[in-house]
Amino acid sequence: MRATVLVRPKGGILDPQGEAVERSLRQLGFAVDGARVGRLIDLEVAAPTPAEARAQLESMCERLLANTLIESYEIELESGDP
Amino acid sequence: MRATVLVRPKGGILDPQGEAVERSLRQLGFAVDGARVGRLIDLEVAAPTPAEARAQLESMCERLLANTLIESYEIELESGDP
Repeated sequence: MRATVLVRPKGGILDPQGEAVERSLRQLGFAVDGARVGRLIDLEVAAPTPAEARAQLESMCERLLANTLIESYEIELESGDP
Repeated sequence: MRATVLVRPKGGILDPQGEAVERSLRQLGFAVDGARVGRLIDLEVAAPTPAEARAQLESMCERLLANTLIESYEIELESGDP
């Protein structure tokens, strides 16, 4: 089952990378605000059901993919649509 | 207008970070495959219409947010749904 995990810095957490991106975009003339930079992980999970895949992905996030002290994560499952 | 830009390594491009993540997940006992790591940028764009916002975001991607030689990008607009 194909999945995408989105990992973002939590609200109160400083995000220097986001600040740098925002500054650079403004210097290029773009009217932007509140830029935050996170990461994404695309992967294929071997699981019999979407519920099982989601449970595994949550466990992966808690154990490896996200630092839950300072980051939040979001799981998007591409279920077997044709 | 709130937007999220997803930036991913293109198909043929080596992704050492994705390989490392996949190896680590397997060592933890997860049955995963094809892991790829990219990044995401959340930001607020000042634009009068969604079409205008999308055009600006495409320009930002081409000029700063993505290296289009080796990365592809995807733009998600959160239009003003209530």
